[in-house]
Amino acid sequence: MRLANSARMRRLIAFVIALACCALPAGARTPVPIGTFPPGAVDGITDVAGVRVAHVTKVEGTSVRTGATGIIANDDTWNQRVAAATYVLNGNGEMTGAHWVDQSGFLEVPVVLTNTLNVGRVDDGVVSWLIGKHPQIGVREDVPLPVVAECDDQGINDIQGRHVYAEDVVAMLDAAKPGDFLRGNVGAGTGMRAFGFAAGIGSASRVLPAQLGGYTVGVLVNANTGSRGELRIDGVPVGRALVNELLPIYPRSAGYAPPDHGRAADGSVIIVVATDAPLDHTRLRDVAKRASMGLARTGATSHVSSGDLFIAFSTTHRYPRAGGITGPPLESDEDRIDALFAATVEATESAIDDALFSAHDVSGRAGVKYFALPRERVLTLLKR
Amino acid sequence: MRLANSARMRRLIAFVIALACCALPAGARTPVPIGTFPPGAVDGITDVAGVRVAHVTKVEGTSVRTGATGIIANDDTWNQRVAAATYVLNGNGEMTGAHWVDQSGFLEVPVVLTNTLNVGRVDDGVVSWLIGKHPQIGVREDVPLPVVAECDDQGINDIQGRHVYAEDVVAMLDAAKPGDFLRGNVGAGTGMRAFGFAAGIGSASRVLPAQLGGYTVGVLVNANTGSRGELRIDGVPVGRALVNELLPIYPRSAGYAPPDHGRAADGSVIIVVATDAPLDHTRLRDVAKRASMGLARTGATSHVSSGDLFIAFSTTHRYPRAGGITGPPLESDEDRIDALFAATVEATESAIDDALFSAHDVSGRAGVKYFALPRERVLTLLKR
Amino acid sequence: MRLANSARMRRLIAFVIALACCALPAGARTPVPIGTFPPGAVDGITDVAGVRVAHVTKVEGTSVRTGATGIIANDDTWNQRVAAATYVLNGNGEMTGAHWVDQSGFLEVPVVLTNTLNVGRVDDGVVSWLIGKHPQIGVREDVPLPVVAECDDQGINDIQGRHVYAEDVVAMLDAAKPGDFLRGNVGAGTGMRAFGFAAGIGSASRVLPAQLGGYTVGVLVNANTGSRGELRIDGVPVGRALVNELLPIYPRSAGYAPPDHGRAADGSVIIVVATDAPLDHTRLRDVAKRASMGLARTGATSHVSSGDLFIAFSTTHRYPRAGGITGPPLESDEDRIDALFAATVEATESAIDDALFSAHDVSGRAGVKYFALPRERVLTLLKR
Amino acid sequence: MRLANSARMRRLIAFVIALACCALPAGARTPVPIGTFPPGAVDGITDVAGVRVAHVTKVEGTSVRTGATGIIANDDTWNQRVAAATYVLNGNGEMTGAHWVDQSGFLEVPVVLTNTLNVGRVDDGVVSWLIGKHPQIGVREDVPLPVVAECDDQGINDIQGRHVYAEDVVAMLDAAKPGDFLRGNVGAGTGMRAFGFAAGIGSASRVLPAQLGGYTVGVLVNANTGSRGELRIDGVPVGRALVNELLPIYPRSAGYAPPDHGRAADGSVIIVVATDAPLDHTRLRDVAKRASMGLARTGATSHVSSGDLFIAFSTTHRYPRAGGITGPPLESDEDRIDALFAATVEATESAIDDALFSAHDVSGRAGVKYFALPRERVLTLLKR
Repeated sequence: MRLANSARMRRLIAFVIALACCALPAGARTPVPIGTFPPGAVDGITDVAGVRVAHVTKVEGTSVRTGATGIIANDDTWNQRVAAATYVLNGNGEMTGAHWVDQSGFLEVPVVLTNTLNVGRVDDGVVSWLIGKHPQIGVREDVPLPVVAECDDQGINDIQGRHVYAEDVVAMLDAAKPGDFLRGNVGAGTGMRAFGFAAGIGSASRVLPAQLGGYTVGVLVNANTGSRGELRIDGVPVGRALVNELLPIYPRSAGYAPPDHGRAADGSVIIVVATDAPLDHTRLRDVAKRASMGLARTGATSHVSSGDLFIAFSTTHRYPRAGGITGPPLESDEDRIDALFAATVEATESAIDDALFSAHDVSGRAGVKYFALPRERVLTLLKR
Repeated sequence: MRLANSARMRRLIAFVIALACCALPAGARTPVPIGTFPPGAVDGITDVAGVRVAHVTKVEGTSVRTGATGIIANDDTWNQRVAAATYVLNGNGEMTGAHWVDQSGFLEVPVVLTNTLNVGRVDDGVVSWLIGKHPQIGVREDVPLPVVAECDDQGINDIQGRHVYAEDVVAMLDAAKPGDFLRGNVGAGTGMRAFGFAAGIGSASRVLPAQLGGYTVGVLVNANTGSRGELRIDGVPVGRALVNELLPIYPRSAGYAPPDHGRAADGSVIIVVATDAPLDHTRLRDVAKRASMGLARTGATSHVSSGDLFIAFSTTHRYPRAGGITGPPLESDEDRIDALFAATVEATESAIDDALFSAHDVSGRAGVKYFALPRERVLTLLKR
Repeated sequence: MRLANSARMRRLIAFVIALACCALPAGARTPVPIGTFPPGAVDGITDVAGVRVAHVTKVEGTSVRTGATGIIANDDTWNQRVAAATYVLNGNGEMTGAHWVDQSGFLEVPVVLTNTLNVGRVDDGVVSWLIGKHPQIGVREDVPLPVVAECDDQGINDIQGRHVYAEDVVAMLDAAKPGDFLRGNVGAGTGMRAFGFAAGIGSASRVLPAQLGGYTVGVLVNANTGSRGELRIDGVPVGRALVNELLPIYPRSAGYAPPDHGRAADGSVIIVVATDAPLDHTRLRDVAKRASMGLARTGATSHVSSGDLFIAFSTTHRYPRAGGITGPPLESDEDRIDALFAATVEATESAIDDALFSAHDVSGRAGVKYFALPRERVLTLLKR
Repeated sequence: MRLANSARMRRLIAFVIALACCALPAGARTPVPIGTFPPGAVDGITDVAGVRVAHVTKVEGTSVRTGATGIIANDDTWNQRVAAATYVLNGNGEMTGAHWVDQSGFLEVPVVLTNTLNVGRVDDGVVSWLIGKHPQIGVREDVPLPVVAECDDQGINDIQGRHVYAEDVVAMLDAAKPGDFLRGNVGAGTGMRAFGFAAGIGSASRVLPAQLGGYTVGVLVNANTGSRGELRIDGVPVGRALVNELLPIYPRSAGYAPPDHGRAADGSVIIVVATDAPLDHTRLRDVAKRASMGLARTGATSHVSSGDLFIAFSTTHRYPRAGGITGPPLESDEDRIDALFAATVEATESAIDDALFSAHDVSGRAGVKYFALPRERVLTLLKR
């Protein structure tokens, strides 16, 4: 019985594959369609119903190029905790709160991205925001452990200055909303660089056909990793062709390494995966791992200096603070979970491409300059 | 050959056991000798050469009862990084920086303990302190990921106020010094409670005989966990006898649970293990796990609400920032490593006892009062 | 509301504690009552409804002293898979099948214990037994990954001979039954030694009061670990008093180390925890960790040479092969889960005591002799 | 100083990249060059000096299509234990011995691959082989924990029959030798299928330039995973073009699912990484993780039904049984380790391609037939 159904399912997948590789899906953000499942309305993490995003961007004078980005799973995560799990591909980075997510199996706070030295102030801001909304925290109620993840933007930003303040975070989280949002070097991505190009925030989504559950998978990345020569887009090694072009400019005064070196170059990549599929911690752990396979498809090899930390959550499998567990029965069909894995891989690869295609040229600290991916040049390479 | 040596070693251990159980060793902090190995000079983590400790204690008005405690592995951990590993017994808590410790296998920052909502500000303070000492951080040099671990002191402290500021942390770390230091409800332990008694910072050390390497193991805990009925001291279930005595006083206005409930009661315990034995990350992971066995001997069962997070480091196995790895050859003798495990268990149990024996009665927020362990009563119970 | 209920619950626990420490509970196996919760009918893992146990014991000639022990979660685990998780305290040992248990979150095969070199033959026997019952395995149906865990009995057994054959395992599993079963040096425990005494299979159970869910926790151990001097029973350091008595006899011809040395001495301990509480993989992971805290209370410190591997399963949270997940809602009440943790610690400590109190003197290979724990002597020590 | 060196290193890498993408390197096994580093002499795991490989292949009658493959790190791993680590991408499979590898940080036994139900007999064979070579095992010496990893070949093989016997394994391990060896559906790979094509054993190696240490990385895979539509070779989605061609033939009598379904289809992939770079357990853990990134580049997404288990070892960082640790200083240069990561990704991708290009059409149980990858067709697709 299961076999027969599954055979039909597989034929369907074959059909979807046949269709999908022909044309850019409506709504796709990047000029290069990645994978076989179609994107949602905005091709972003907010295609998962209830998920909200906000940025705070700090571009001031010649050397402040930084910010923060918040992702909120629903409109009251403190009381409507969602199933979640984290995964560490390479732990040269920080994602606070991961111990509690993996202990409890749920997420009860926003996920906020920022630069490395700003983690403390952003953490403090998340606490302030939560106390503002839930004044019993720490009085008659439990205390939160914020989830704050970082990438290093010292290459172009005055990172010592820690220019994102607690109050910036409060305002940002208050402003989080569903629907489309800015991508590229904005918010936490403002000072980021991936594969030697300006990068930062990227996002994508994939929607499964009804027979595979009709679920949506949304991914948001802060891309700050990868060497130029490694870059592949949809499998095409464009990085090799661009290995000596549009390299970041580091004036001697910046005192910096040439491109492709050290933690400043290799940076990190934070990946946030959201889905409305009813999955618990154990299965979300597997989803978070698949983000590393999407990353691999971009040519990245997860350098020693990279903090490649991922978190996945389900908006429908919930642990209300009042007790119990709510949501539809856990998805346990293997074909559907496999499809969720594939969608995660595709959306992750696409989100990283999105960060590259969305960023613009940027100059910053000590005259350092990052160039955007040369869009037309890349599309020509892809056509060949 | 190895067998013969080992036989001698075991006879020695038997002899040490015979000696050790007779009398309180000179220098022991607590009135109850725990285990078989003797303590070092101050029976504390600073008996490991080079380790320094400092507190900042915030006792203000009727409701500020909190602080922070810093442990520094050597006088320049940023450049003289020490082998390290973390272990999560129950992850209802935070120890930032753990991803990087376990990725790299080393520790390059101070370990700072504080309360839950103060993690952000303390993190920010650690960053400021490091920038002050190493102005090239984030300019020409890598950026730090602070290690900050917390316990919840909301039971008696105005935790929302986050009264430990970044500048407090800078001053505290500047003041860290070797030698003896205060224990009990001081520093990060100011508002802590374990087994229903005032508790907080405790410490102990154990010194192996020369034939087992002569190494020192030092432990520092911030004890804020355990239910009254569970408490055992050196195996004696004193908690049962004291189950209805000297219970914390919670005025109705405090809005609190009675003792022995929830995260506020179950708190957490952070355990820091230092040793001068040349061990790398893999073996320190095993040492950190043994801290959970020392905790178990106090009767604790690691409640759902408890953040039981441990870190172990070796002062002699180092990863200089300039490159390479330094130190004597890694200890790989099984008898010696077993002895280090046993010393870790003993020092952990003893450090938790130390926290209980060292704390004094304290009142705080909303009239809540924690009582100290009734020393004489307990010693009488132990004699029976 | 929850607070109020919890207060009542805590008072109940205090009452239970007061009762429990007075007298040996009816049905308790060991002469020393451990902990605060009462045991079930046989004070063994089979007190968890549906769990069955069987032994095969191989005592032949002067040197075969070995066997196997099987634990089956229900009468058709292949189709009625139960939630499960494993935990590694010290990985100097083997528990096959652990990858699949921790990936899937369930257990679909028996758990079989044996000696180190017999793992292959026992694994082969489990496969034969499963094919016998489910002839579609490997034809139209998935293939099993047996769970086989070992301890080293080379000290007294001809371990090279691998005397447990596949057909022995088939017969043993066919004979598994509920109710009481033999303990001590029987089955997989035949050649085991713990704390320098004959040991092996021990078991215990604890039943929570109805207000805490009324759940049963059952533990079965194969105890082959620990040095004499470390042994504590209910907190009393009896090992110190017995450190030079009834030591194992190793004739020179045995070529062995004296007691307390090496993998042969330190052995391993395998711990199997069963419960009827509806817990999933994530929470059972936490239960399995608590087994290490029960072990710690016996004085063991988990030596380098010890394979301390644990598995926990829930008989009521199931993953039928036909699809879906069945069982009552997952237990998510913190007080109840804390009580399950405490019951696990108590039952583990008690099960190890049971192994010691149940074993008898045994001689084997090359004239080696292990003595049983001197029961009356120990009870006298405990009374003091 | 380090920066300057690194700049030179990076220019070198850029140069290597420029060279590498032009032509098939001498010695490459597959018609498609993967990555940027050149292969070693046989483009296989045996390019790492000292590593030996052997197969036993069982093709009998119409339904026995199975075997085993052994990889030995040096000529006396029992006494010359090598640093090692494992990684689980998806744990629907078995790799015995992993607990001990990850506890100790070393590997002291051969790694043997076989089918799922044959794990027990192969384990028994490894024990026999080791006892034959080291008769003191289990008498005066420690006992081994074999490393045996499996993939499911039930699709085409009489897996119930467990046709690889202990004595086959003994003979196979005796015959292991350095130099070139057979690839494709041979040894453990005899009945394997990947991406819907006949597959099995593949191997590849990469050699770093002298300035990056001159190290060799060798990979051996048993490839039995992946859906047809997913397949990419060097980034080109050839699977989409072949999604309905040369599909496995499943006669109705086989009772099987159509392609791309269930554990039989999704199989597993075991990946073994060897290197002569002096890396310890912690860094080899990172190397093993990078194998998952090489797998990702083939288009695989690691299905629910797949046992994707990896092991990495260093031939030069050793833990002699006699005590101590030997070998050159651990490699700690970040550029070199990054290059080792990249080489691992490249060699893994290439080894999977090798399995596909090396296998031939095969028929087996119940008339099931797997077709080989259509070599010329694929090369044409790649040229486009």
